Amino acid sequence: MNILAIGPHPDDIEIGCGGALIKYAQTGHAVSLMVLTDGSYGADPSIRRAEQEEAAKYIGAKGLYWGGYRDTELGCSRELIVKIDAVIEQAKPDVVFLNFWADVHQDHRAAAQAAVSATRYIKEVLFYEVPSTQHFEPDIFVDIQDVLERKLHLLRLHASQVDKTRVENLNILESAQSCANYRGFQGRVKFAEGFKSVRMLREIR
Amino acid sequence: MNILAIGPHPDDIEIGCGGALIKYAQTGHAVSLMVLTDGSYGADPSIRRAEQEEAAKYIGAKGLYWGGYRDTELGCSRELIVKIDAVIEQAKPDVVFLNFWADVHQDHRAAAQAAVSATRYIKEVLFYEVPSTQHFEPDIFVDIQDVLERKLHLLRLHASQVDKTRVENLNILESAQSCANYRGFQGRVKFAEGFKSVRMLREIR
Amino acid sequence: MNILAIGPHPDDIEIGCGGALIKYAQTGHAVSLMVLTDGSYGADPSIRRAEQEEAAKYIGAKGLYWGGYRDTELGCSRELIVKIDAVIEQAKPDVVFLNFWADVHQDHRAAAQAAVSATRYIKEVLFYEVPSTQHFEPDIFVDIQDVLERKLHLLRLHASQVDKTRVENLNILESAQSCANYRGFQGRVKFAEGFKSVRMLREIR
Amino acid sequence: MNILAIGPHPDDIEIGCGGALIKYAQTGHAVSLMVLTDGSYGADPSIRRAEQEEAAKYIGAKGLYWGGYRDTELGCSRELIVKIDAVIEQAKPDVVFLNFWADVHQDHRAAAQAAVSATRYIKEVLFYEVPSTQHFEPDIFVDIQDVLERKLHLLRLHASQVDKTRVENLNILESAQSCANYRGFQGRVKFAEGFKSVRMLREIR
Amino acid sequence: MNILAIGPHPDDIEIGCGGALIKYAQTGHAVSLMVLTDGSYGADPSIRRAEQEEAAKYIGAKGLYWGGYRDTELGCSRELIVKIDAVIEQAKPDVVFLNFWADVHQDHRAAAQAAVSATRYIKEVLFYEVPSTQHFEPDIFVDIQDVLERKLHLLRLHASQVDKTRVENLNILESAQSCANYRGFQGRVKFAEGFKSVRMLREIR
Amino acid sequence: MNILAIGPHPDDIEIGCGGALIKYAQTGHAVSLMVLTDGSYGADPSIRRAEQEEAAKYIGAKGLYWGGYRDTELGCSRELIVKIDAVIEQAKPDVVFLNFWADVHQDHRAAAQAAVSATRYIKEVLFYEVPSTQHFEPDIFVDIQDVLERKLHLLRLHASQVDKTRVENLNILESAQSCANYRGFQGRVKFAEGFKSVRMLREIR
Repeated sequence: MNILAIGPHPDDIEIGCGGALIKYAQTGHAVSLMVLTDGSYGADPSIRRAEQEEAAKYIGAKGLYWGGYRDTELGCSRELIVKIDAVIEQAKPDVVFLNFWADVHQDHRAAAQAAVSATRYIKEVLFYEVPSTQHFEPDIFVDIQDVLERKLHLLRLHASQVDKTRVENLNILESAQSCANYRGFQGRVKFAEGFKSVRMLREIR
Repeated sequence: MNILAIGPHPDDIEIGCGGALIKYAQTGHAVSLMVLTDGSYGADPSIRRAEQEEAAKYIGAKGLYWGGYRDTELGCSRELIVKIDAVIEQAKPDVVFLNFWADVHQDHRAAAQAAVSATRYIKEVLFYEVPSTQHFEPDIFVDIQDVLERKLHLLRLHASQVDKTRVENLNILESAQSCANYRGFQGRVKFAEGFKSVRMLREIR
Repeated sequence: MNILAIGPHPDDIEIGCGGALIKYAQTGHAVSLMVLTDGSYGADPSIRRAEQEEAAKYIGAKGLYWGGYRDTELGCSRELIVKIDAVIEQAKPDVVFLNFWADVHQDHRAAAQAAVSATRYIKEVLFYEVPSTQHFEPDIFVDIQDVLERKLHLLRLHASQVDKTRVENLNILESAQSCANYRGFQGRVKFAEGFKSVRMLREIR
Repeated sequence: MNILAIGPHPDDIEIGCGGALIKYAQTGHAVSLMVLTDGSYGADPSIRRAEQEEAAKYIGAKGLYWGGYRDTELGCSRELIVKIDAVIEQAKPDVVFLNFWADVHQDHRAAAQAAVSATRYIKEVLFYEVPSTQHFEPDIFVDIQDVLERKLHLLRLHASQVDKTRVENLNILESAQSCANYRGFQGRVKFAEGFKSVRMLREIR
Repeated sequence: MNILAIGPHPDDIEIGCGGALIKYAQTGHAVSLMVLTDGSYGADPSIRRAEQEEAAKYIGAKGLYWGGYRDTELGCSRELIVKIDAVIEQAKPDVVFLNFWADVHQDHRAAAQAAVSATRYIKEVLFYEVPSTQHFEPDIFVDIQDVLERKLHLLRLHASQVDKTRVENLNILESAQSCANYRGFQGRVKFAEGFKSVRMLREIR
Repeated sequence: MNILAIGPHPDDIEIGCGGALIKYAQTGHAVSLMVLTDGSYGADPSIRRAEQEEAAKYIGAKGLYWGGYRDTELGCSRELIVKIDAVIEQAKPDVVFLNFWADVHQDHRAAAQAAVSATRYIKEVLFYEVPSTQHFEPDIFVDIQDVLERKLHLLRLHASQVDKTRVENLNILESAQSCANYRGFQGRVKFAEGFKSVRMLREIR
């Protein structure tokens, strides 16, 4: 299968579905990433680009596409939808992961809306969560216990972002592990990533 | 895998997930049914029992369990939950299908609540819809185009119920086909059954 | 009464509330349509314009207003709201129909938001559904059994769009009939269109 | 038309839809009331019965049915549904009003659930609100400006209840007028009652 | 504490949380206001500016910031978020009040979204309601009985707006009092303002 | 102030709001607990009673009330509501904590409904979450960083329950810490408990 994950900034994809992507790649599926902005608000864009490339490599992704927008300047425009359309045309995904539409960050809201439009004929489209997501009630889970260490390593590759939670003493690694444990219980496993379906056409095999 | 479908009355399971069950059985999975009441409000209970047995056979179900309650008298009692627990103990389901909790029929509300409690440690639990369901927004779909005729045949086996829609000129077969077509488009196929997840632990293979 | 239906593209109005509009016109009410874009993404805009004019005539509409936007380029701008305001000023609607705000198509989201703003002092405003609508739970229904054939004819007038569902073997006529039957049962009739109220001031007569 | 309003206690109907009922009766429709409990928790049941009879007379109701339950002891039982069924059989309502299901009072929750079940084939069923209702977002309104004084008089007939708000200095008359004004603006009139549809089959005339 | 209230137009803040602000100022907290547009659609902007300045003075606000946008032209842009960020930087609020995101007015929707983004690290952020708000279910209340007269006086200071409800015979003062009484009962007091939390970090003292 | 926490089983209160209760008691408020069932399904009831008494003592609670029901047999009956009423009469709470109504455990659903009814005139009532809670979106948070160790100790006092998560390798202590960290970020602190308001009358001081 072809898997495409779309994220507004470098590191959003890894936080939201990095564990699932590692498992898809391990199993032999073709994973691609599309990052819409340069993340320049969080650090120098060249650093963030390099971190994202490292992360893509670590996941084992076949492709890394950039939307080319500047951080904090994303809008749900026709242009953005067309750019995602073009990546979909190329990556031919069977499954698309995208961030959830309710979010305190404006780029995230725009990214989610545009990606929901661009994926309108894809048969499996799943929302993931990041720390700024609001009102998220996942009901689909992926067990990431066996790749948790790899997921945490993945987040460490975004070294410029690890301590940028703006909550005292809290870093992203700790936050990601707690989230995985919290969602894990909801999926009845120890560590999980949680997802919400835009639509999922389920195979019976 | 072991699949268990739970329904408040004879024919609810077939309407809600008959197509998916036929596909599971065809693929070699072990399908079991649990019907909570005797359906005596709709017809003579011996007729409905016989119809349900025929339907189970046609699906290719390995087991058919009866809750033993009288139609319209279901409550979400400890006793009912314990009965479902016992069937789960025996059928060891990997996947459970149950009717949705918002419904104009009191038996359906009670069945859904009890089944949600009884399945609390099952890793995949999915709500299905029937005509009395309210507020249902499925986001998981199973393509039933190739088994639609078999699903309609299945509904015909509940011969005492086919014309009991209480809407003039409308029968259950027509209604089921329209629903499959309506949900089909949402799942981006021609005919589908729609589901909503209580929780689904998704395998990556 | 004066009835105004607003749609993002040619054919959206007919799909969503064509049956109700035919009944309003038959009963002697003055029906007007406002179509916001030229539908150029779906076919040559001159073809779509001609189809829309035919459809308006078939409904028996007194007026057909165009928003003048290009397909896929609608935004919920002040300009769009002002344009709808101007049509409201002219058509003086007692009832307005508009598409629902949750939708995978960006034009539809923008159209719904702008129309909700423009209709803020109208006493009856109802959302309709189209195939790209999401999360729609209608609770107001119009029986369209006696005009179903006319509604299907209406959709056929948008000949360039009939097979554009992007789902294999599915065309819009079949989809519309299934939807009418599915919503019909919810309204306790055989075929219905389903609506959700923004606000409805109900007359007691 | 035949109109039936169902309420858990004496005075709930009048608070929730007294204005609409007065207008229905004035216009020549046949209004019936069904009160499920004796209201004995609020005052002596014989007083509350007499007050309710006065209120029914003032509305101009053709029938007043009693459920016969004791205050605070209502459950959503088969027995209750059967009792409402029997009244529906007799009153043959075209429109049913019932209290909303989300409510801090247990009798109200049970009444709403039972009435939703009993009215499952009625083509127009509307929820009304009372002070203990929660999460109510009406989107259908009835203008009661011309009968507001009569509605307040109606509430005064339930004299044993007027000061029972348990909020200091607040009585039911003041509360009802504020609610009517608050809902009024939502319906774009000065005073309104607000409703939410279980289902409404709308006539086009 | 430092309190910041953000409103799309002159008078929105006073309608939504004027009572709470008066109480905060009375108690010795530092209240600031930020008004995003000039309100020029409702009256001459110089009049509205003067009214807003009077209102801020009457509240006892320490600061009044202007967003500088023209009425009806607000969009949830990066620029707007940055402007609010700058005010937050200066006012250092512990608590922020902002209008709710579901609203029939486009400026209100944009203001709410931008303010949710700008306040993402503030520990107490509360939505207030105005007459154009939709789907608002407050669950946090402030008792304004002792300042109701002052709140009504505050609204009268926006003299150009008092009769602009576009509902016959209804003025803003009456509407505000009814709303306070309606929300009051929900908070179990006579008059209240109702709020909904974006997030509230509650002190235990 | 007087604080009352209500829980369906021994340990639910400690999981849901143990940290907040410790802080209330530390600050000098009078904390009471009401536990509705004996927890006999999880272990010998005498053990669970002893554990609960230890926990109450550790919190510094002034009172511990028992509902006297058997585990798994709770229903939202008049009797249960009356029992909670009696405790409220005695404890005179200013703030009540109760478990959320959406829950896979039938006792929890019944407890929440009964407690919502019993607390209908209390001015601050907050829902807490436990691992079986569903659809919980807290928007009020209490910082528990400084009492996290004490909260974990509190959970250890329910020694019979620590490993009863039925998820492999997961214990309640780990789960509680992850939840506190997950909710912490939502409240913009390191560790928090999350709550949802039934109603909160907020003091301005």
